Amino acid sequence: MKKPWSGRFKKNTAKVAEQYTQSISYDIRLYKHDIAGSIAHAKMLAREKIISPKDSTLIIKGLKEIQKEIENGKFKFSHELEDIHMNIESALISKIGESGAKLHTARSRNDQITLDMRLYLREELNEILKLLRNLQSVIMTIVEKHIDSIMPGYTHTQRAQPVLLSHHLLAYISMFDRDYERFKESLKRINILPLGSCALAGTSLPINRHYVAELLGFEQVSINSMDSVSDRDFIIEFLSNSSILIMHLSRIAEELVLWSTSEFSFIEISDAFTTGSSIMPQKKNPDIAELIRAKTGRIYGNLIALLTIMKALPLTYNRDMQEDKEPLFDTVDTIKMTLSVMIDMLPEVKFNTKHMAENSEGGFSTATDTAEYLVKKGLPFRKAHEVIGKLVSYCISKDKSLSGLSIKEFKKFSTLFDNDIYDYIKANDSVKNRKSYGSASIEAVKKQISIFKQLLNSIPTQKNI
Amino acid sequence: MKKPWSGRFKKNTAKVAEQYTQSISYDIRLYKHDIAGSIAHAKMLAREKIISPKDSTLIIKGLKEIQKEIENGKFKFSHELEDIHMNIESALISKIGESGAKLHTARSRNDQITLDMRLYLREELNEILKLLRNLQSVIMTIVEKHIDSIMPGYTHTQRAQPVLLSHHLLAYISMFDRDYERFKESLKRINILPLGSCALAGTSLPINRHYVAELLGFEQVSINSMDSVSDRDFIIEFLSNSSILIMHLSRIAEELVLWSTSEFSFIEISDAFTTGSSIMPQKKNPDIAELIRAKTGRIYGNLIALLTIMKALPLTYNRDMQEDKEPLFDTVDTIKMTLSVMIDMLPEVKFNTKHMAENSEGGFSTATDTAEYLVKKGLPFRKAHEVIGKLVSYCISKDKSLSGLSIKEFKKFSTLFDNDIYDYIKANDSVKNRKSYGSASIEAVKKQISIFKQLLNSIPTQKNI
Amino acid sequence: MKKPWSGRFKKNTAKVAEQYTQSISYDIRLYKHDIAGSIAHAKMLAREKIISPKDSTLIIKGLKEIQKEIENGKFKFSHELEDIHMNIESALISKIGESGAKLHTARSRNDQITLDMRLYLREELNEILKLLRNLQSVIMTIVEKHIDSIMPGYTHTQRAQPVLLSHHLLAYISMFDRDYERFKESLKRINILPLGSCALAGTSLPINRHYVAELLGFEQVSINSMDSVSDRDFIIEFLSNSSILIMHLSRIAEELVLWSTSEFSFIEISDAFTTGSSIMPQKKNPDIAELIRAKTGRIYGNLIALLTIMKALPLTYNRDMQEDKEPLFDTVDTIKMTLSVMIDMLPEVKFNTKHMAENSEGGFSTATDTAEYLVKKGLPFRKAHEVIGKLVSYCISKDKSLSGLSIKEFKKFSTLFDNDIYDYIKANDSVKNRKSYGSASIEAVKKQISIFKQLLNSIPTQKNI
Amino acid sequence: MKKPWSGRFKKNTAKVAEQYTQSISYDIRLYKHDIAGSIAHAKMLAREKIISPKDSTLIIKGLKEIQKEIENGKFKFSHELEDIHMNIESALISKIGESGAKLHTARSRNDQITLDMRLYLREELNEILKLLRNLQSVIMTIVEKHIDSIMPGYTHTQRAQPVLLSHHLLAYISMFDRDYERFKESLKRINILPLGSCALAGTSLPINRHYVAELLGFEQVSINSMDSVSDRDFIIEFLSNSSILIMHLSRIAEELVLWSTSEFSFIEISDAFTTGSSIMPQKKNPDIAELIRAKTGRIYGNLIALLTIMKALPLTYNRDMQEDKEPLFDTVDTIKMTLSVMIDMLPEVKFNTKHMAENSEGGFSTATDTAEYLVKKGLPFRKAHEVIGKLVSYCISKDKSLSGLSIKEFKKFSTLFDNDIYDYIKANDSVKNRKSYGSASIEAVKKQISIFKQLLNSIPTQKNI
Repeated sequence: MKKPWSGRFKKNTAKVAEQYTQSISYDIRLYKHDIAGSIAHAKMLAREKIISPKDSTLIIKGLKEIQKEIENGKFKFSHELEDIHMNIESALISKIGESGAKLHTARSRNDQITLDMRLYLREELNEILKLLRNLQSVIMTIVEKHIDSIMPGYTHTQRAQPVLLSHHLLAYISMFDRDYERFKESLKRINILPLGSCALAGTSLPINRHYVAELLGFEQVSINSMDSVSDRDFIIEFLSNSSILIMHLSRIAEELVLWSTSEFSFIEISDAFTTGSSIMPQKKNPDIAELIRAKTGRIYGNLIALLTIMKALPLTYNRDMQEDKEPLFDTVDTIKMTLSVMIDMLPEVKFNTKHMAENSEGGFSTATDTAEYLVKKGLPFRKAHEVIGKLVSYCISKDKSLSGLSIKEFKKFSTLFDNDIYDYIKANDSVKNRKSYGSASIEAVKKQISIFKQLLNSIPTQKNI
Repeated sequence: MKKPWSGRFKKNTAKVAEQYTQSISYDIRLYKHDIAGSIAHAKMLAREKIISPKDSTLIIKGLKEIQKEIENGKFKFSHELEDIHMNIESALISKIGESGAKLHTARSRNDQITLDMRLYLREELNEILKLLRNLQSVIMTIVEKHIDSIMPGYTHTQRAQPVLLSHHLLAYISMFDRDYERFKESLKRINILPLGSCALAGTSLPINRHYVAELLGFEQVSINSMDSVSDRDFIIEFLSNSSILIMHLSRIAEELVLWSTSEFSFIEISDAFTTGSSIMPQKKNPDIAELIRAKTGRIYGNLIALLTIMKALPLTYNRDMQEDKEPLFDTVDTIKMTLSVMIDMLPEVKFNTKHMAENSEGGFSTATDTAEYLVKKGLPFRKAHEVIGKLVSYCISKDKSLSGLSIKEFKKFSTLFDNDIYDYIKANDSVKNRKSYGSASIEAVKKQISIFKQLLNSIPTQKNI
Repeated sequence: MKKPWSGRFKKNTAKVAEQYTQSISYDIRLYKHDIAGSIAHAKMLAREKIISPKDSTLIIKGLKEIQKEIENGKFKFSHELEDIHMNIESALISKIGESGAKLHTARSRNDQITLDMRLYLREELNEILKLLRNLQSVIMTIVEKHIDSIMPGYTHTQRAQPVLLSHHLLAYISMFDRDYERFKESLKRINILPLGSCALAGTSLPINRHYVAELLGFEQVSINSMDSVSDRDFIIEFLSNSSILIMHLSRIAEELVLWSTSEFSFIEISDAFTTGSSIMPQKKNPDIAELIRAKTGRIYGNLIALLTIMKALPLTYNRDMQEDKEPLFDTVDTIKMTLSVMIDMLPEVKFNTKHMAENSEGGFSTATDTAEYLVKKGLPFRKAHEVIGKLVSYCISKDKSLSGLSIKEFKKFSTLFDNDIYDYIKANDSVKNRKSYGSASIEAVKKQISIFKQLLNSIPTQKNI
Repeated sequence: MKKPWSGRFKKNTAKVAEQYTQSISYDIRLYKHDIAGSIAHAKMLAREKIISPKDSTLIIKGLKEIQKEIENGKFKFSHELEDIHMNIESALISKIGESGAKLHTARSRNDQITLDMRLYLREELNEILKLLRNLQSVIMTIVEKHIDSIMPGYTHTQRAQPVLLSHHLLAYISMFDRDYERFKESLKRINILPLGSCALAGTSLPINRHYVAELLGFEQVSINSMDSVSDRDFIIEFLSNSSILIMHLSRIAEELVLWSTSEFSFIEISDAFTTGSSIMPQKKNPDIAELIRAKTGRIYGNLIALLTIMKALPLTYNRDMQEDKEPLFDTVDTIKMTLSVMIDMLPEVKFNTKHMAENSEGGFSTATDTAEYLVKKGLPFRKAHEVIGKLVSYCISKDKSLSGLSIKEFKKFSTLFDNDIYDYIKANDSVKNRKSYGSASIEAVKKQISIFKQLLNSIPTQKNI
């Protein structure tokens, strides 16, 4: 098949070279965006009298037919035509003849591909923003259900202080909120029209880039044509933001794995979201959570891939940039799928709140409250800390808990102890006594719920093609 | 030396363990931020009557003395005291006794360290924002000096179309502008007070977090204490943004290396920013540019380091997070140093504009203009492309340039050619004929200059401690 | 469809969970290795009387039929059956009934999958070793053709000293030889039988692992069952070695890009391995070389992906490890394709040896020889270096070359200069005068050719399934 | 201070450029290797009559004095002299005059630095090999102590089958053995002399590279000078091997963290290797294990750093390569320190073997044995698996364990069950019944011990400088 660019070439492209350079096997997913971009371009060309209204009409009709053929699986893609752009343009020319040959006026694949990528990513990002809000809502439902369930809070995976399950889960809502913010801000840098930059330098034809931007819903027109065709920041930024998001997801996944162990027994994930073993008949494994945790590798890898590709490339477009697509597409798919599976799985997690509450009593988890008790009685904190440290050490050697100590025993460590100490050593007391903003107390949790619920309701409607 | 937390411990920490866990050898750089945070904390404790005004006054005085001792090199740091927090707190207690033992009330090292990091990064980021604007200004000066110098524009490192040196350099100003935006937006997520989250759960003492935020110039108070002590997003976001920035810097560095070759001879970097060889007496190497290019590795590595560390960590604080500091500090130092050296080096680059202009004639770089010429005469672009492709092929076989062709020769390829074709085949014509917004024409460049100059003037003044 | 492990489950797997956990869409490529492993396993089970000879015969016959069905495109794969193992086992049971239900005796998917991966990678690695030797041979042909062509040697992309094109290309043969060595050594750690480790702990059935190893051509049997099912070192080692290889390939690709520029004009890549532009009719771009350079990102990304996945996984098998496959498969495909395209492209590169030779005269590239000339006359090297440095500086200011200096001018810089200096300042002299082992002289190049040719002939024949 | 290469330069290096290019602040650690290389070089120069015996003697004496001065802290290093090579050469010339100026004959910093790096890494690698063997020995001591302690074996962090603590720990000995092998093999590619490659092309002076190799204990002399000065494979290979090692260490660290939780309570790490909290008096955290886990980030980051740096560098030496040092040094330090702390900590871990054994009974961990019991009675495994799956499901619904079932209940699920089933359902039975090579049975463990002990004794003695 003749290449549209083959005028100056005398020899055909080698088969192995065609196979190595083709991108149609994966950029096929951009067909819709490529066609939308071309339609807007054709409209502008006619409006500015660069082509005739009739040409424009024929082009638009032809492109719409091609879109249908693709969607009906009737379109024949060819590897020899390298990419989605040339596949569509060639089909258009076959279909409508000379008018089709006018579409690529004042346009290069260099600006066309980044246009397609921007349209694609804008659309997918809107989807991801919705999924993020859904995930937060799903967690919020659990938060509200378990608003007053006490559980051990951990640092260093060691029991630290009693907290509320609702507070623990709100930490994730808070993380995902930062993800939401970052993705949303990045839209600004995606929503910029590159078309009209042409190969790298613009054109001598009187195009109207602002009109194309308007047609496609872009907020800005790119300022510098050379930057415009060699910029992949918007993709890297998406991969970075996705890396942080998947890291957050890996943390919640890790906790689901931990909490599912016989040893923790904090949760049970339903049969629908666990799988069995081919050899061990008793097994029920948290595979989904493990796979979510593992997806981290893939996203970090995609980020490093594109960063590596872009390093030290001279201006402007280099073919290296074609390799931006697979990491992007894989990241979009992985993030969407992972958010979806998390959204569906979390409601299928049963929390053993009674067991969690019981476990929050052990391990001297109210030692800090006890120290703060002494502070309130006037002891400097650093001394209170030491007193309680020794008290704990004494308890361990006697195999006692704090609540098992007599007031006489307490007083051996500090005369400041009084009978009211017994109001400070249950997990429940600890939660009840908390005062500070953002803390693990029911009051503070209610405040958090109200703040986040407001945010959850503010999903902006964004323009897609 | 006794550890402040050793109450419940019977055995001393092993020497090798102390060496492995210490962070004082690098977190020493946070002393100023640690002290500022402690002073604000002490003021709040007194205001809320958790400690007495006298305690607060003594603490503040003590901390200021310690700061002076550190700055005078008189402070004795101890590895046994692990980190900057315990070194300072211990010194304070030695200095002022019981009042000092009250400072750590309602505070943990978990919230204290992320406070210090946020204060540190906010300060450094303001510095980096200024350096970025400086770099853009330095480039702008060159842009304005060479506003009408023509040079070859490249795609695939092959000559593509004539552009303007000013336009080429404006592409970098445009890139750095996105960097500036990203860094600036990230400030919002840095400028949040974590203090008062304590270990992970808040406190039973009646602290006032909003007052501390006000004292330290934070715009928000963190909403969830568990998220607050286990969040390192703000550092990863900085490392991501730095990765994109260093990638941009590696591209300009690559071009400096390329343009310095004998083969390109587009620039000469002054003696002050090149170095020689220990064996080859004639060598003058663009070492600075090469090192800038290489720094990319370091920053990408730092990003991957922290992403790896954070993967799948259960809530809340884990000691793993201590490893966030060295990649951050190294990135801050590298970015600042690299921006500075670029700022100083670029004015020492001599552009051989005459040579660049001459080179923009070769390689049929106006072929696209010639095709657009035919489009204007009514030929569909795809056909025009083919005509010119064949024309170029003819020229190569005859060893001629476009301007060396007779009108007869032109007409052999298309009868649409007329004598006015000779106004479209010089590099200069190409630049002159360009019409489109953002393109490589003098008019479009002037527009860009005016847009960016406005941005360059808008450096916000930000609060530091 | 019923899952083979569903005995203890009451609820069906959710659709989204099935989709998220399935691997059949990519582990399908292991069908051949899975079947080969199962056949060996069945033979062993019969030999050790764990199943009957009749069962074994039926199983083997059934598996061979399945293999044919897969190869003829007649096999129906099901996502519900998760992976290649369960798809094949289920089909076998459908086909031969009860005997088929005996195949999974004393075996788990945990040891089965790592068996498949080892068989797969062993086979592909043998292919890659051959391709590496082919690539070296292709380069060797060019080396021998251009054994005495002089070209500029570069450091810092600056002309440094004249070298031979053959010597330059031998540097790549040398690099690829290290790649070959590393891959070959890694085979030792791949060629170890994991089967019989079962889920993690081995089995109470009297299996004979050494017999299976013999049947499948493994040199060793794994020593520890828990390590065996949780080890992915062999894949990471392959990804690391591939990362170094692609880095080498990116360096040669970078040189092809550089040398193809108008500015260097050292080579011309044939039409068959270059492509054109959709807008610029004159363009002929080194796309293949650019894409090879870019593939580096993908391989580094795959390496980081698996390293990230394996970080901090507790023993033994975790579902995370399923994510090892796509990075491995993608790396195998990329490496094989990239080696192949390089093998086909290099013979299509035309070296402009005359231009290269001319260029090796410029840039004072024999300054080092001139310094060594002075050393031979008795001047300490460091002083000779300085003398020549000043001489070069003088030449630049007078716009002269070394060979353009009169003997009087030479003597102004050192009285040691004599008329024989003119035998040391041409590029050709420089190459001729070289003495040292491994250097860029024709004699040393011949030595290198003979060493590497011997290595190229030593391709070991390795066992595949 | 005058640069030794400044002959052709008219302007001084800018301060900021000096600061940016200097490496003396970190390559100072190579002083010993630099001097050893120089001494060997001087001996060779004299032997080949390139310098006089007197010069050689003076040089060697001077260098030894400089080494002493450095080791006594009396040597003044200068940033203006860039690196360790120029600092030492300049000092030598100051000390012994003209003879010193002869040392750099037939040598460049390009071959000198890679010589230093190879000598350094060879030495450190020998140290690391010893530490690896030590770590394996330390684990072996625990293995032998707990040879018959039963514990739960895990897949998916879910209890899977009973194993032996000794078997579990032998899995780590096995992993570290692969690390040992990989590091040892890499020595071959480190132990190659680059010196004499000079800048990139060798020299016209009659040097004897094989003699230098002999003096420095190198097994080979590099074959191609251009490859030789631009090769950093040996460092990347070390970083890759270190990445796999630290991944292994992160897995054992993760298990130490998990096993230290209140929930698992499998181990207690001694006070000497845990630390406390600044706020929570009761805390005792496994910080060392957490930090080991976190060091993974640093090593992966270092690997990516160097891979990124080397991508697409044209031949030969580029200043980018200077950035190889810090990632290498940091990796060497981290690996040595981490191995050391692990070696010291493991003996301080107390295993609660009784608790571990008790826990291995729960969770139907002998379900697989029970299925194999049915297989031995003639049931196809896949059916046996289903029978036991249903049995387990029945037990869960009745809240019974396998050993709590009556024979009548067993028979309801399969008539093949007989009274001997009670010999297959205790964890102890499971371990006792195991037959296969490499499995978790005492016999198989003893075999493993004997295999690994033999390997542990085979530490080769390697040559250092």
